[in-house]
Amino acid sequence: MEYHLNGVLVPASEASVSVHDRGFRYGDAVRVGLRAYGGTVFEWEANEKRLRRVAEGLGLTDAVPEDLRERVRETLAANGPDDARLDVSITRGTDGGLTPPSNCEPTVLVTIEERPRGGLDGTRTWDEPALVQIVKTRAIAGHAIPASGLTHARLDGVLARRELERASTDAYHADEALVRDEDGHLVGGAASSVFFVADGVLKTPRAEGAAAGVTRDVVLDLAREESFPVETGAYAPADVRAADEAFLTNPTWELRPIARADGVAVGTGPMTQLLTRLFDERIERHHYE
Amino acid sequence: MEYHLNGVLVPASEASVSVHDRGFRYGDAVRVGLRAYGGTVFEWEANEKRLRRVAEGLGLTDAVPEDLRERVRETLAANGPDDARLDVSITRGTDGGLTPPSNCEPTVLVTIEERPRGGLDGTRTWDEPALVQIVKTRAIAGHAIPASGLTHARLDGVLARRELERASTDAYHADEALVRDEDGHLVGGAASSVFFVADGVLKTPRAEGAAAGVTRDVVLDLAREESFPVETGAYAPADVRAADEAFLTNPTWELRPIARADGVAVGTGPMTQLLTRLFDERIERHHYE
Repeated sequence: MEYHLNGVLVPASEASVSVHDRGFRYGDAVRVGLRAYGGTVFEWEANEKRLRRVAEGLGLTDAVPEDLRERVRETLAANGPDDARLDVSITRGTDGGLTPPSNCEPTVLVTIEERPRGGLDGTRTWDEPALVQIVKTRAIAGHAIPASGLTHARLDGVLARRELERASTDAYHADEALVRDEDGHLVGGAASSVFFVADGVLKTPRAEGAAAGVTRDVVLDLAREESFPVETGAYAPADVRAADEAFLTNPTWELRPIARADGVAVGTGPMTQLLTRLFDERIERHHYE
Repeated sequence: MEYHLNGVLVPASEASVSVHDRGFRYGDAVRVGLRAYGGTVFEWEANEKRLRRVAEGLGLTDAVPEDLRERVRETLAANGPDDARLDVSITRGTDGGLTPPSNCEPTVLVTIEERPRGGLDGTRTWDEPALVQIVKTRAIAGHAIPASGLTHARLDGVLARRELERASTDAYHADEALVRDEDGHLVGGAASSVFFVADGVLKTPRAEGAAAGVTRDVVLDLAREESFPVETGAYAPADVRAADEAFLTNPTWELRPIARADGVAVGTGPMTQLLTRLFDERIERHHYE
């Protein structure tokens, strides 16, 4: 594979950054994960808008190159796989200490990994429904780092996932952590958004601005098009355990049912199945027809 | 300059890490800043203990090499300056996604930068007393990332410092941000600990475990040796503004008086001056005699 690093394609194994890079030293970088289906990026406009919004919050507006879309296209074209996962990272560059210098030469990186998908009759994007578990590690608060999930400061997510490994037993080995904010309200998975159905209403934790995932927004749109009752609010982990249906969303898994939460069976159901079907159709229509 | 990277000395300009390095991708790394005076590291034992404690919290215990001290020594010896600032970083390696793999080959990095110092009659370690300002950005909570100041997830500190640049006027340009926790209590500077004197008592915010800086601990020791009344607790930014004396500590600045807090004059005084003198004498005694 070849990655796009500062305007040129380089072999993945040789793609490196200086140890002074602020993305390395401080997590001082914005990143979005993208999916490409049939050679084109899923929801490019929404993703670019989101990336620019996070960049603006970090004071990285000028670091986002005008030709970012072209760089992503070149990365796809150079590597071949039409179905792929891509990550776009933009760091504040290699200069300065903790105080960011006023003029930085940003580091712009596009990485790619093949992820077969196909349309309606394609490959599933996950092996098994998710087993989730609530963890002690809390999400970084928005007043410390806005939309930290879209930066390189993701150590909270690593620690949340690490708790799963430590807590795993032969009987239950969760593969996604459910994290809370400082008030104990559910934020979502360590690397996913969470949805659940209770009393026929589709519910998902409120997400501020750029912290809301693009896949999450697409699912909310699909639900509204079907006139499903939808609610965004503040929820407790117990709400997921008690739900009739629950699923996770992110660019890799798309919609992935939650089989069990903290060991309690939840599973899929008609709303999850219909939304998955609608999501598949949307991809088929936009990318493979 | 040469850096020590994964066991070998490399020219600083060529020291780089893979874009897959977890320190780059997630801030998944521990880092401590060290000072060397007269060719030896200041408070090595306390610093190593602190590094190992943070590493343990992150599940990086096995990543800390046995010969770390030797690597630091080699870095000092190869580069010449007897007075220097060093940074030791240990990342969880280059493998895995957000979930850390069980077996990682860590990245171990020692960087160095010359910082002239000398003993009692040496160079000052800062140009001017500090101008500090309280910022909106809060510190990452310990329940999200324990001792985040000693990891590569330092974007909160970058954003705090960035606020100073945006808020600066011709009349007041602060060079250190005072940050609070989620409850509004003072944590310290973005890259320093804060001390202040009120009613003859030396006060500093309570710091949990490894989050307490080594320079801070040395200052507390010196104060106790002089039988100064010392208090660690929960304070408000207003307490610093109203203080009789105030100063910052970190490995680079050592003790640096706070001239103004949010524009209000605070300044140095007998306790700050005596502690600075005692600190200088300790360095003279341990490193230059």
